[in-house]
Amino acid sequence: MLDFKLRSQSGASRAGAFETAHGQIETPVFMPVGTLATVKALSPEELKEAGAQIILGNTYHLYLRPGCDIIERFDGLHRFMHWDNPILTDSGGFQVFSLAKLRKLTEEGYAFQSHIDGSRHMLTPEKSIEVQICLNSDIIMCLDQCLEHPASHEQAGDALELTTRWARRCKNVWQVQTDCRNSLFGIVQGGMFADLRARSAEEISEIGFPGYAIGGLSVGEPKELMMEMAAHTLPLLPADKPRYVMGVGTPEDLVELVGLGADMFDCVMPTRNARNGQLFTQQGTINISNARFRKDEQPPDPECSCYTCRHYSLAYLRHLYTSREILAYRLNTIHNIHYYVNLVKAMRAAILAGTFEAFRKDFYGKRRMVPA
Amino acid sequence: MLDFKLRSQSGASRAGAFETAHGQIETPVFMPVGTLATVKALSPEELKEAGAQIILGNTYHLYLRPGCDIIERFDGLHRFMHWDNPILTDSGGFQVFSLAKLRKLTEEGYAFQSHIDGSRHMLTPEKSIEVQICLNSDIIMCLDQCLEHPASHEQAGDALELTTRWARRCKNVWQVQTDCRNSLFGIVQGGMFADLRARSAEEISEIGFPGYAIGGLSVGEPKELMMEMAAHTLPLLPADKPRYVMGVGTPEDLVELVGLGADMFDCVMPTRNARNGQLFTQQGTINISNARFRKDEQPPDPECSCYTCRHYSLAYLRHLYTSREILAYRLNTIHNIHYYVNLVKAMRAAILAGTFEAFRKDFYGKRRMVPA
Repeated sequence: MLDFKLRSQSGASRAGAFETAHGQIETPVFMPVGTLATVKALSPEELKEAGAQIILGNTYHLYLRPGCDIIERFDGLHRFMHWDNPILTDSGGFQVFSLAKLRKLTEEGYAFQSHIDGSRHMLTPEKSIEVQICLNSDIIMCLDQCLEHPASHEQAGDALELTTRWARRCKNVWQVQTDCRNSLFGIVQGGMFADLRARSAEEISEIGFPGYAIGGLSVGEPKELMMEMAAHTLPLLPADKPRYVMGVGTPEDLVELVGLGADMFDCVMPTRNARNGQLFTQQGTINISNARFRKDEQPPDPECSCYTCRHYSLAYLRHLYTSREILAYRLNTIHNIHYYVNLVKAMRAAILAGTFEAFRKDFYGKRRMVPA
Repeated sequence: MLDFKLRSQSGASRAGAFETAHGQIETPVFMPVGTLATVKALSPEELKEAGAQIILGNTYHLYLRPGCDIIERFDGLHRFMHWDNPILTDSGGFQVFSLAKLRKLTEEGYAFQSHIDGSRHMLTPEKSIEVQICLNSDIIMCLDQCLEHPASHEQAGDALELTTRWARRCKNVWQVQTDCRNSLFGIVQGGMFADLRARSAEEISEIGFPGYAIGGLSVGEPKELMMEMAAHTLPLLPADKPRYVMGVGTPEDLVELVGLGADMFDCVMPTRNARNGQLFTQQGTINISNARFRKDEQPPDPECSCYTCRHYSLAYLRHLYTSREILAYRLNTIHNIHYYVNLVKAMRAAILAGTFEAFRKDFYGKRRMVPA
C-alpha cells in the first residue's frame, strides 16, 4: 500500500515518495506535532500554507481526550479536526512512559493512570493498534518499550526483546483488523548500545513492516551519542522502506540525519519553542522578547515567505509576545512550522539536484549569522 | 471630513454611512475591540472575513505598551498591526478609571500609576488627543470623566461639567494638531440623571463634533436604567451626525439601541465571552463546555456561514475548549465576532428595507430557542 519509491540519492541522503489513503508524501518530510487533534495555535489551512504534508497525533492524549467513542463518530481524526491530508499517530507508549502516573509494565502491556483524572487504563500492543485504527491514521506505530537514559545493557536488552515480541502482536492485530488502508511502522530500540541497536534492527526488519522508525533517541543523551546511534542504526534498516527518526530535533539535527539517510521526522520544537518566544530563521535562532527588537521594523527573516514574515515586524511580534496576546503564539508558530517544513523540503530539492553537500555548507554558514 | 449620510430611517432606527481616511463605514456598525493592537485571538484577515469594517484600540493600553515611540515608527496602528481599515481609539479615561492605580483627578487631568509596572503618568485632554493622533486613529475620542455607579446628582453634575471643559480642550488640540484626516467625537456624560444627560448633550453638541458618543452606560446599573438613559439621550444628539453608544452590550441590547437610533457600538462581550466558552447564536447563547455537546456533530449554528461553523462541530470545539487549546479561543472568537458584526449588518439591511420591526420580532423569537 505504502509503496515507497526512492527518487534520488546523494551520499547516504535520500529523496523519495510514498502513498497513503490521504495523499502522497514526499520525503524527507517533517511532521508537525498535533497532540490533541490540533497543531497548537494553528488552523489546518495555515499548516497547508506552510507546506505541511502530514501531521502527527498522540494516541495517548487522544485516547484520554476526547476518547475513541467521540472520534469514531467522525470516522477518525481527519474530519473531526478538519484535516484531510495524511496523519501519523504514535503508539502512546512514550506518553505513558513520560506522563502517566503509577504505570506498571508487564508482558501484557502498560497499566497506567491518566495524568488528567487518575482513571486506570491498560495499554497493550493490541489496544494501541485498535485505538490508532479508530483514529483512522494513515501511518500507525507499533507499541514499544521506552527507557530512561541512562539504562544498563541488560535493561536495554530486555526492553528490545519485549519491543520485538510486542511488534509481532501489533502486526497480527493490524493484519486482522485493517484493510491495509493504513501502514504499520516497526520501531527499533536498543538504548545507547550499538550491538543492541543492530539486534533490534534485525529482529524488527525480519518481522517486516511498510516502514521503520528509530525510537529511544533524544531522551537526554549527549548530542554526539544520539548522532552516533542514528548513524549506526539507519544503514541497518531496509533501504526500500521509509526511515523515521522519532522526536528529533533541532534544525542542525535534521540536516545531519537527512545526511545519514533518514526520511521522516517529528518534533515539538518548532511549536513549543514558538510558544516560548523562540524563532528559527535561516540566519540563526532568535528570542522575540529580546529588547533589541523593540523598535525593529524588519520581519523575523527577510528571506522568509511565511504569513508572519510577510506582514509583521519584530517590534510587533515582540509587543504581542510580551503582552501574552494569543495571536503571538499563532504568528510565532506559523513562522517556525514554515521554517522546519521548508528546511526539509529544501534538503529534498538539494538531494534531487545532487547538491546536498553544498546545501549543508550553506545552511551552517547562514545559521551562525545572528546571535540568539 | 466624516460626512455622515443618512440613507434610511425606520422609526427611530437609522441606516447611514460615513467616510474615514481608511475607507467608508456603513452604519449601524459593530466595532470589535482590539485593546493591544490585536483583536484577541484573531488575525486582520479573519476580522475582514467576518465583515468587520472598523476596530477599536485602547489608548491607555497602547500608550503603556508598546508605547508611542514604537507605534509612530510605523506611522500609527494600521501598519504596526497589519490592519488597513478604519480604527477608532478611546481616550484612555475609562481604563485609567477602571485599571490604573492611585489615580488622582484634577482640572488638569488624571495622574495615575501604570497597572503594569507602577510607573507614573499624567493623562490630560491634550495628552489623550496627542496619543490618539500618534496612533493615527480614524476616529478619536474626547477625554471624559467616568463615574462609579451609583453616583450622586452632585457628583454626576461635577463630572459632566469637567467633561464639557475637557471637550473644549480636546477640540482645540485636535484643530491645531491635525489636518482633519481623523474625526473627533464628543462624549455625553451625566450619570443616571435625565436632566444631567440633557444638559451634557446640549453642551457637547454646542461645542460641535463630527460625531457624538454616550459614555458612562453599562457601568453596573440595571439594564432598564441603561435603556432608559439611552432612550432619553439618543434623540437629544444631532440627527445629522453618527451616534455611538460606548461599551454596550448583549445582542438584545444592540437590537434595542439600534431601535432607539444608535449607529455605532463596541463591546468586549463577543471576544471575552468567546474565551470563556460562550457562543452567541441566532437560536440562543450556549456554553461550549456543556456535556450535552460531547458527541454533537453539528456546528454551533447551522445557519451561520463563519469559518468555525463551516468546518467544525460542537464536539470538536468542546474538546478544544476543555483541553485549553489555543485554537479554541480563535474558533470561538471568529464565530462570536461574525455573529455580532452580522447581527448589526442584518439590522442595517432591515432598516433599508423598511422591515426593522419584523426583524426585531424574528430575532427575539429565534434567540429563545435553545437553553444556555
